[in-house]
Amino acid sequence: MTLAPLPAQRVVLATEDDPLRLEHGARLDHVEVAYETWGRLSPERDNAVFVCHALTGDAHAAGEGGWWESLVGPGRPVDTDRFFVICPNLLGGCRGTTGPSSVDPTTGRPWGLTFPLFTVHDLVSVHRRLLAHLGITRLHAAVGGSLGGMQVLQWAVDDPGAIDRALLVAASSRLTAQNIAFSAVARDAILHDPDFQGGAYAGTGRRPDRGLAVARRMAHITYVSEESLEAKFGRARVASAPDGPPQHETDFQVEAYLDHQAEVFLARFDALSYLYLTRVMDYFDPFADAGAAARAGSGGTRFLHVSFDTDWRFPTAHSRRTHEHLDAAGADSRHVEVASPWGHDSFLLDPPGYHDEVRAFLGGAPRS
Amino acid sequence: MTLAPLPAQRVVLATEDDPLRLEHGARLDHVEVAYETWGRLSPERDNAVFVCHALTGDAHAAGEGGWWESLVGPGRPVDTDRFFVICPNLLGGCRGTTGPSSVDPTTGRPWGLTFPLFTVHDLVSVHRRLLAHLGITRLHAAVGGSLGGMQVLQWAVDDPGAIDRALLVAASSRLTAQNIAFSAVARDAILHDPDFQGGAYAGTGRRPDRGLAVARRMAHITYVSEESLEAKFGRARVASAPDGPPQHETDFQVEAYLDHQAEVFLARFDALSYLYLTRVMDYFDPFADAGAAARAGSGGTRFLHVSFDTDWRFPTAHSRRTHEHLDAAGADSRHVEVASPWGHDSFLLDPPGYHDEVRAFLGGAPRS
Repeated sequence: MTLAPLPAQRVVLATEDDPLRLEHGARLDHVEVAYETWGRLSPERDNAVFVCHALTGDAHAAGEGGWWESLVGPGRPVDTDRFFVICPNLLGGCRGTTGPSSVDPTTGRPWGLTFPLFTVHDLVSVHRRLLAHLGITRLHAAVGGSLGGMQVLQWAVDDPGAIDRALLVAASSRLTAQNIAFSAVARDAILHDPDFQGGAYAGTGRRPDRGLAVARRMAHITYVSEESLEAKFGRARVASAPDGPPQHETDFQVEAYLDHQAEVFLARFDALSYLYLTRVMDYFDPFADAGAAARAGSGGTRFLHVSFDTDWRFPTAHSRRTHEHLDAAGADSRHVEVASPWGHDSFLLDPPGYHDEVRAFLGGAPRS
Repeated sequence: MTLAPLPAQRVVLATEDDPLRLEHGARLDHVEVAYETWGRLSPERDNAVFVCHALTGDAHAAGEGGWWESLVGPGRPVDTDRFFVICPNLLGGCRGTTGPSSVDPTTGRPWGLTFPLFTVHDLVSVHRRLLAHLGITRLHAAVGGSLGGMQVLQWAVDDPGAIDRALLVAASSRLTAQNIAFSAVARDAILHDPDFQGGAYAGTGRRPDRGLAVARRMAHITYVSEESLEAKFGRARVASAPDGPPQHETDFQVEAYLDHQAEVFLARFDALSYLYLTRVMDYFDPFADAGAAARAGSGGTRFLHVSFDTDWRFPTAHSRRTHEHLDAAGADSRHVEVASPWGHDSFLLDPPGYHDEVRAFLGGAPRS
């Protein structure tokens, strides 16, 4: 099973003559990036908003079926009537951008696990090449949730002043041991699926779908709050009467819900990308470099950190800590916690107050 | 790989002439139970304490390497110098008591998934047969943590007054949607392991170890608090320098810890028992029967519920709710929350105050 390509634009951003050198020394001689844009770039090129996607996102942030359709669009907080919005599929992804399921030009075969491990810095390097390709030197804003917010933070560190407004939603500057543990179990499920075949499953007609489904189901539990699962499903049954006998098969509605989540996910995501992009998050720790916060604030970037009170994937403490690092280093930074019943996934939804915060933060009218 | 038998006593508690009829209609014509005892039964037979084990426990609660050695032993809160302590392996278990990896007498082959699904009521029915076999009619106490506490509660409902003191630690009277969801993913990892072979893996030389390891690793995360994982491991590395390049292999110490947990677990537990005993917990909901709480309190049983403030597997709200059900029905019930850094696993450990509560609760000196 191969994933259907998305109808995005594509551009080659690294070649043998201009390779992408990764943070830890590896080199990519061919990087192609799929991206979408919405709205129009102003003549002054000063109304660009860059959307960085999260672990399992893609370039299709807005428009019909876009994963951030609620936030990005005409009249929305990220208003495509005013802003030129760009969203690329990440390096290492599986929806059009070069990643571990792409072909290694030196062997003619899919990379698999021979694709080099990369970092959030490398994700941002590719973003910066895309921006240069589009002829934009400074962003009105960079916005992202979860891993998307990590990219926004790294970007501010790597290229101070390239971003007017940096919006980090439900993000973290360093995963906890528990965060890492959950991702480790997810990867374990994939790596130990016999259909993973050491990562060389492309063209074999078999994918590690069982392992990837386990990974997704588990991760999904961490994306939603206990309260919202309870309110939505409680102990309601699908197949049997409330007092019917126990059965091995899916019976509680919450089980059917996870089954469905896994099924939908398998149709749009790849196990290798899951391995690489979760690993990217594990190693992210920009403030381990003592000068990073000061550098991020040195170009006049304004930061807004939004967290959600029921998020237990990246609880408010993560956003507060990132804010405090920046604030202590003199950056213009603000943190707001939004009340939401929906946990980590709130960044994709519309809890009261969230969109207003984003709208106000992006609000300075573009000069065009 | 076959699990090594534990050096427990064994007794046949159901036969073709005296079968065990399960709550939902199935019948077991042969039930053998492995159990251990410590201490001496008083001449009046009134100093017996019954220990109900949790999901992955066994009969070896006390003595060297016992899973509840900290709580049960000479001079310990469950004092084997004073009490006659009994702990059986559960029905459905894999350490000596009849379960899905036992041989179905009608086919001569291991049961596998043809073993009937059972309930906490059925676990208690077997406990009651063991007690009758030992010639004991009333317990000084029944004690259990997690699934063990569920058995204690069900026992009080099923046989009011058979227990003087009922101690439920870190237990629940009904799992939440999130609880069920985690167990569903764990079972999914086992069921989809090709080595599971539809449950008929006995004698094939292959066990669903990969699936069971994923299940255990994930479950283990839920047994410990985020705080304790962070304090113990943080982001420390095993294999590489703190700023070394990322790698696919186990690198963070928390990953190595989960690897170790899984390895130890595989040597002592069976995937089929894991399927059955987690499912038992999913369906447990004694107060769905409106008369259950009043019945549990009608025999003069005293209840103590202990919960731990960092337990996010069965948070304090679970214990409080169980207490409130019983209290509202007129039972003698008390709930105490103990501060502990260690999450759900606290019931196996010794956070300040916990053992004192247990000691005081069991304290009435036996008449012997």
